[in-house]
Amino acid sequence: MTNNEHARHKARMIKKKQHIDQRIAAANESRGIIIVLTGNGKGKTTAAFGNVARCIGHGYHTGIIQFIKGDWPCGERQLLEQTGRATFHVMKTGFTWETQDKTVDIAATQEVWKAGKVMLSDPNLRLVVLDEITYVLRYGYLAIEEVMSALQQRPAMQSVIITGRGCPQALIDIADTVSDIQPVKHAFDAGIQAQEGIDW
Amino acid sequence: MTNNEHARHKARMIKKKQHIDQRIAAANESRGIIIVLTGNGKGKTTAAFGNVARCIGHGYHTGIIQFIKGDWPCGERQLLEQTGRATFHVMKTGFTWETQDKTVDIAATQEVWKAGKVMLSDPNLRLVVLDEITYVLRYGYLAIEEVMSALQQRPAMQSVIITGRGCPQALIDIADTVSDIQPVKHAFDAGIQAQEGIDW
Repeated sequence: MTNNEHARHKARMIKKKQHIDQRIAAANESRGIIIVLTGNGKGKTTAAFGNVARCIGHGYHTGIIQFIKGDWPCGERQLLEQTGRATFHVMKTGFTWETQDKTVDIAATQEVWKAGKVMLSDPNLRLVVLDEITYVLRYGYLAIEEVMSALQQRPAMQSVIITGRGCPQALIDIADTVSDIQPVKHAFDAGIQAQEGIDW
Repeated sequence: MTNNEHARHKARMIKKKQHIDQRIAAANESRGIIIVLTGNGKGKTTAAFGNVARCIGHGYHTGIIQFIKGDWPCGERQLLEQTGRATFHVMKTGFTWETQDKTVDIAATQEVWKAGKVMLSDPNLRLVVLDEITYVLRYGYLAIEEVMSALQQRPAMQSVIITGRGCPQALIDIADTVSDIQPVKHAFDAGIQAQEGIDW
């Protein structure tokens, strides 16, 4: 690299740093946020658990409600529960196509939601994950008004992550950060088996 | 719910289960996969770390190369390193706009990539994360041919996660699963500070 190129790169980076520093200085509000991870792509639940790991790594406590998914062994749950700083409530009945019984699904949803409401009022929880809650909202197994109200009344510094396809617009509207995860391709569609440690 | 509604729901779920079971049966190839998490939205790195947590939870070993990001305290690293099943190599120099020196950035990239190549040839690692590698590829600090060749020669059961905005097409082409994470909105743009446990 010539001295000239070196100087030009340095000048660009100084300008970039100024811009970034200004944006950081402008962000001066501090409160818990609502993060929505939606869309049909892979990575919604894993991103939520990455955030739980991050939070626990700093010594905070977290709560996780898993709608839809059953109580089978799952790598992240095993690891995070061991830390003593992640409390899980899992809808033990599993997928709707496994129960094949709407009454059972509704009762199971209401039961884990009861635990969810307690978490959403607990100021000791830095982060609460409502994993795959969008499905039970879309099926009408849980009233969106109840969820909205619990979210709005939660402790000021508590953040919440909502995951699942087809997130209702009302939740997107009150969220602070929303990512739409789109599938470009998926190994499963190409005939590759789901794998321990990668897919569950 | 009437008996009729009940029966209709059950019939729909039986059909859905058949469809899903067929798809699961059709996916009969077993090998390590390449996952690309790209796009400008939030959740790429956190999803990668969620997958590392999952993998470790099942007792597997993992390796993580962090390009771009510096050596500051970071919740997920603290937690995952403690397990003894996650090895990190971090480009300690940090963001390009912090170093403001291209020669330093290139040398730092090459150094962590050396560790990356070792990981990509280690059959004991179930999962390797190349976090934010897309940037150093776009800047030309690392040759894409080198990365492609290391990926293609890796152990058969090793999976790799590649994160970062603007992933080069060549990597998308050889990947098995690709998610494009689009930002709908971001708390930071609304003036909310980055927070410990949530953003780092």
